[in-house]
Amino acid sequence: MSEAAALDLAAVHSRADVERLDRDDPLAPLRERFALPTGTIYLDGNSLGALPRATAGRVAEVVERQWGEDLIASWGRHDWLGLPRRVGDRLAPLLGARPGEVVAADSTSVNLFKLLAAARRLRPRRSVLLSESGHFPTDLYIAEAIAGWLDGTSRVETVDGDGGGPPSDDRIVAALSDDRLHEQIAVLTLGHVDFRTGARRDVARLTAAAHRAGALVVWDLAHSAGALRLELDAWNVDFAVGCGYKFLNGGPGAPAFLFVAQALQEQVETPLPGWLGHRDPFAFTPSYQPAPGIDRFQCGTPPILSLAALDAALDLHHEASAAEPPMAALERKAARLGDLFLALAQRRLEPLGLAPVSPRQAAQRGSQITLRHPRAGDLIAALAERGVVGDFRPPDLLRFGLAPLYTRYVDIWDAVERIAEAA
Amino acid sequence: MSEAAALDLAAVHSRADVERLDRDDPLAPLRERFALPTGTIYLDGNSLGALPRATAGRVAEVVERQWGEDLIASWGRHDWLGLPRRVGDRLAPLLGARPGEVVAADSTSVNLFKLLAAARRLRPRRSVLLSESGHFPTDLYIAEAIAGWLDGTSRVETVDGDGGGPPSDDRIVAALSDDRLHEQIAVLTLGHVDFRTGARRDVARLTAAAHRAGALVVWDLAHSAGALRLELDAWNVDFAVGCGYKFLNGGPGAPAFLFVAQALQEQVETPLPGWLGHRDPFAFTPSYQPAPGIDRFQCGTPPILSLAALDAALDLHHEASAAEPPMAALERKAARLGDLFLALAQRRLEPLGLAPVSPRQAAQRGSQITLRHPRAGDLIAALAERGVVGDFRPPDLLRFGLAPLYTRYVDIWDAVERIAEAA
Repeated sequence: MSEAAALDLAAVHSRADVERLDRDDPLAPLRERFALPTGTIYLDGNSLGALPRATAGRVAEVVERQWGEDLIASWGRHDWLGLPRRVGDRLAPLLGARPGEVVAADSTSVNLFKLLAAARRLRPRRSVLLSESGHFPTDLYIAEAIAGWLDGTSRVETVDGDGGGPPSDDRIVAALSDDRLHEQIAVLTLGHVDFRTGARRDVARLTAAAHRAGALVVWDLAHSAGALRLELDAWNVDFAVGCGYKFLNGGPGAPAFLFVAQALQEQVETPLPGWLGHRDPFAFTPSYQPAPGIDRFQCGTPPILSLAALDAALDLHHEASAAEPPMAALERKAARLGDLFLALAQRRLEPLGLAPVSPRQAAQRGSQITLRHPRAGDLIAALAERGVVGDFRPPDLLRFGLAPLYTRYVDIWDAVERIAEAA
Repeated sequence: MSEAAALDLAAVHSRADVERLDRDDPLAPLRERFALPTGTIYLDGNSLGALPRATAGRVAEVVERQWGEDLIASWGRHDWLGLPRRVGDRLAPLLGARPGEVVAADSTSVNLFKLLAAARRLRPRRSVLLSESGHFPTDLYIAEAIAGWLDGTSRVETVDGDGGGPPSDDRIVAALSDDRLHEQIAVLTLGHVDFRTGARRDVARLTAAAHRAGALVVWDLAHSAGALRLELDAWNVDFAVGCGYKFLNGGPGAPAFLFVAQALQEQVETPLPGWLGHRDPFAFTPSYQPAPGIDRFQCGTPPILSLAALDAALDLHHEASAAEPPMAALERKAARLGDLFLALAQRRLEPLGLAPVSPRQAAQRGSQITLRHPRAGDLIAALAERGVVGDFRPPDLLRFGLAPLYTRYVDIWDAVERIAEAA
């Protein structure tokens, strides 16, 4: 984000000043494309993205016309069979990836299992899966499962932060060149944006450091895809997974996605060889032959209704990306929403004992602001009664997601006021 | 099925005789609850079940009101979090299982991976996963993945049939007591109904034989759940998986289900420890602690739209099961539809070179009739043009699914006539 794009926060004194920001926002019209409940300030789009208005019609079309009338023929006639790849190819530019590098499938956890296992197998003489202790717990559970189930020789090591927080990128870079671990690390797996604090990692730098150590990387983009500009190819990322139901607005439990860099695709194997990852699913051959490219990471039959909802939602990210490189306008708005939140929090909330824990610099932050307060759980409940939806992350964090497709600047103003009232 | 319940096929001479069967069918009114296209005889409900009329409204409710208005609060307010178990508990009686033994999750392939891995781990000193060469190919791919990825010491062995067909139950029982394999078999994994021929296995007998050999069983119920009466508990089944989108009418790619016998639940571990299988998902503890019971076999966030569609569809099986033990009336109708198909095929199709390969005895058959013809693929295409939807299974099989919830006796008559015209 360039400095010139930053808001003049010193000039924001009143709600009227903030309303002006919305009037000047080129993305503002997109909000009308979402079915948001009136009277609610929804700041939990990082847990469940809001409903795009077009989705209900798209799902009804799939249910009533495709399934109801065309029945089994829809696998060909409406190309249900190609839907996981078609959605993947539409996701690709939003991730800085090429068509053929992304597929929508299964859940984030299952996809992580596939890719961690595949990556680990590409480094058979190395035994360490390196992560960090504050990583999203499921990711650590899955890494432990890879170590414990797939072979008895690998183990998960985690880098710790200072004082219970996530470790800095510096500390992870240091671990990658640690004498004890050096030449043992098979895979580095991390989240791009910390789900608690919103801190953003430097993917390019950490990926390069992992590669220098001879390791591969598996990134979890759950808290950045759909909100930030990603450049997976430019950053030389090997593998990534991400979530369809947060900033991508694919609906509750929407299919997740996975990315495999083109150069690795013909070398990798999936530990979950299902029929839709087979070269010719309908030949029903008794032995598995992987499909070319990314398709081998499909497994069973995809949930078409949920996948259609994810497909419908992506229209909005593409519209928001029409005039600039994909996701650039959305990342800029995400940064501004967060900058505004932090500036108002400094004035109104810090004196009340609500300390922001998200980074001050937008470039070091995802699209969420997290505050710390000893009664965080009670405060989130009190805010819900006042129509402000955030979420509580134990033991003491209040988390607010800023969805650049539909969050307004006035939502930030109003939310901060109500947080101040509730505190 | 008692003999008294059988049709008097000798009395069926004309379409009018068959219309009488529909008039006398207590399940006939259920057909109106499906949105079937007019002019089509749909005999592919074993690939994709038809759309229940209530489903569109149920999905719209979840999309527009639950997701659209209540947003993240729906995980509690509409108990999305409990939906996989609630659907599992509604499936349980249809499978002859108890509440708490079934959960809806992921795809059949992924669930098979979980349960084969879990079963294999309960028999650490044994190295063979026993199956049969004609088993649904994905199931064999997954078994090979368990053997190849989870440890280097196990292997898949398959029992072959005579002349390329599936092996008889006798042959599998013999393999279980084979000197070479004896005491090496960790798990026996088979399909209940053969996806090609429709032949049904004796689950109770094969399970008992496996147990005598010290092995565990994992049954694939994809082609029987929702059409046949299952008695997983009475049959002493250890593990089972099945499909939501065939005879259960859950929609394209509907979530699958898995069953773990209560007595085994506290011993087993999942190789896919995701957050929704954790004892306390929202505590975000860094180490995995399995949820009590069947819930540990959940993994990532479930696709709620697809799961709601499956939930809606189960109402119809429960209605059809109201007056008798669950699934009894449906299994009886499935048997009669198949008996009628075979009787008409014998008169009209065998002289034309279309040989039925499905068993003559209903008790040895699933709810499908398969015919063999050298030009099977062309015939299926010609039938589609005449409004009869079946499917082709290479190299020479025509497969027709009989869904007792909505297939009429006249559909069988008309389909056989059109097959005769096309042949």
